Amino acid sequence: METTDAGGRGGRAGAEPAARPTLEEIRAAAERIRPYVRRTPLLPWEPPDGEGAGPRRLLKLEQLQVTGSFKVRGAFNALLSAPAGRLRRGVATASGGNHGLAVAWAARRLGVPALVVITESAPASSEAKLRAYGAEVIRRGATWDDGWSYVQEAAGERLLVHPFDDPAVQAGQGTLGLEMLEEWPWEEPPTFYVAVGGGGLISGVARAVKALRPEAVVVGVEPEGAASMTRALRAGRPDPLPEVRTIAGTLAPRAVSDSTLRSVERYVDRLVTVGDDELLAAMRALWQEANLLVEPAGAAALAGLERELRAGKGPSARSGGAFLLLCGANLDVDPVFDRLERAARREAG
Amino acid sequence: METTDAGGRGGRAGAEPAARPTLEEIRAAAERIRPYVRRTPLLPWEPPDGEGAGPRRLLKLEQLQVTGSFKVRGAFNALLSAPAGRLRRGVATASGGNHGLAVAWAARRLGVPALVVITESAPASSEAKLRAYGAEVIRRGATWDDGWSYVQEAAGERLLVHPFDDPAVQAGQGTLGLEMLEEWPWEEPPTFYVAVGGGGLISGVARAVKALRPEAVVVGVEPEGAASMTRALRAGRPDPLPEVRTIAGTLAPRAVSDSTLRSVERYVDRLVTVGDDELLAAMRALWQEANLLVEPAGAAALAGLERELRAGKGPSARSGGAFLLLCGANLDVDPVFDRLERAARREAG
Repeated sequence: METTDAGGRGGRAGAEPAARPTLEEIRAAAERIRPYVRRTPLLPWEPPDGEGAGPRRLLKLEQLQVTGSFKVRGAFNALLSAPAGRLRRGVATASGGNHGLAVAWAARRLGVPALVVITESAPASSEAKLRAYGAEVIRRGATWDDGWSYVQEAAGERLLVHPFDDPAVQAGQGTLGLEMLEEWPWEEPPTFYVAVGGGGLISGVARAVKALRPEAVVVGVEPEGAASMTRALRAGRPDPLPEVRTIAGTLAPRAVSDSTLRSVERYVDRLVTVGDDELLAAMRALWQEANLLVEPAGAAALAGLERELRAGKGPSARSGGAFLLLCGANLDVDPVFDRLERAARREAG
Repeated sequence: METTDAGGRGGRAGAEPAARPTLEEIRAAAERIRPYVRRTPLLPWEPPDGEGAGPRRLLKLEQLQVTGSFKVRGAFNALLSAPAGRLRRGVATASGGNHGLAVAWAARRLGVPALVVITESAPASSEAKLRAYGAEVIRRGATWDDGWSYVQEAAGERLLVHPFDDPAVQAGQGTLGLEMLEEWPWEEPPTFYVAVGGGGLISGVARAVKALRPEAVVVGVEPEGAASMTRALRAGRPDPLPEVRTIAGTLAPRAVSDSTLRSVERYVDRLVTVGDDELLAAMRALWQEANLLVEPAGAAALAGLERELRAGKGPSARSGGAFLLLCGANLDVDPVFDRLERAARREAG
């Protein structure tokens, strides 16, 4: 089992200036975005046999968020934090995934134009969804990095919104930390399991959690084939992966950023990595036992908990239990609908 | 548009004895089953454009219930209402669908054996799931009716649990009515949209709703190809359909029962029927706009609302809004997982 201590205990960093986003920035973000996002529901998830085996698990159903992932929190906060004059010129980003959808959605809701750059090989469904949200879409380059380089030029006067290396984005994602702390129903502190891609989500969440409840534990979960934060933690700096191999496409940037690495060093307790087979097993368990269909990244939290439990680590019922953040559900389920449509045609005779 | 007034207004039936289940039976059921079922979450579902078009919609995510549907409520109440000596001899039912799963699950949780009869053509996955819950499974006959005839003999001293024609089962399902009334957050009364198969769910829900909030409206939604309640209402008695043609297999008994027909006549305001294409469109909308994957029956409530709105009927924001009961999510999503497994093998090289 690959576990990397991040060592973050919040309080210990007393002498250094507080890292951004600050707790105040996260609280301001929560106020700012409230009219535009859902307070997503919770599901207590008892073990299948209904007996007291293993820790209590509480699921945060953030995959039911507007646009299907937590990313709208950061997107709305970035847009709503910008000076109005700037925002009117529009927004721009590079992302064929959840961040792109979130920026396109937020721009539409706020009545400003959005430009989204996606890779040349991005699926047609990504482009269609972005266009349905009213975004201008440009295909450019083979990788996300190509697209990001391009959009920095192409954006012109538009507000550029980075998927994770932006304190306003991290503060928006951090609102999940505030929300989940309020929602945890038991006295003992939770162990949070949070998927790590570029690290924007866990930066915001861990910041809020450690500021308000330092005894809570925050565990980051990365795919083995895209463990860019684990690599950065060991190297002491962001260090691009030579290659990325995972089915969790939304957790697969080649490198994290200085800002997210610093937050993880300070506020996250440890990172675990999980294989694609573990992500798939967690997806299946969520479907079979709780009728929740999530994308591979959305199952990372559960996969991380299961891996820790198998290694005799992680929370027990007595120590508080696990708070699993299901972060996204953008998955192509067309094969299911196609089959139902064939069945409907047969029924219609 | 096919709408059938059921005329139920609750209060009007004052002179007749109260139909079963009574409100007291439903309240007792809620106490009885509480340790075994989930209080399922809610999702307020704003229109896609975020503007005030159409009525407010609140989703009750009962497809996230233990075993994937509301059916465990009735199953637990039936088992827990039986004398202990009787229950120890085991339980029996006929159902390859959600009711069978619910009875098997409840029996396992309560430590008694379950016998479940399914049709000879039931999918292998149904049998596998029932066996995973510890049930004895027998395949018999071509239709549910064959299986039910058979199990009445085969049950011996076991407690027989009918899927809907049983006041204890209806009282269990009625706990959803109590729960949703408590959960409705607005002052104006809701219009409830509830799927109708044999009528057990709507019997219990409408009974509770009309007893406590007679000004609320209850609309039943049936598939056009299996409109057994609409047919019974017109005939004044249960009248088996000559054939059943719908993708909503869990809403497709050929006939309702006297008890559910009487409840619908007294407590349900109207029935609407929807086609398979409308069920599919509602399923797609729930997935695309709220990342919820449900079975066709689970989307019936939304399909019914949409049909009413297109015809200029149904609730407005001012009249209170719509409370949509998503009742089940037992759907075969193997094609999605199969594709992800192929992708994982490719990534592993």
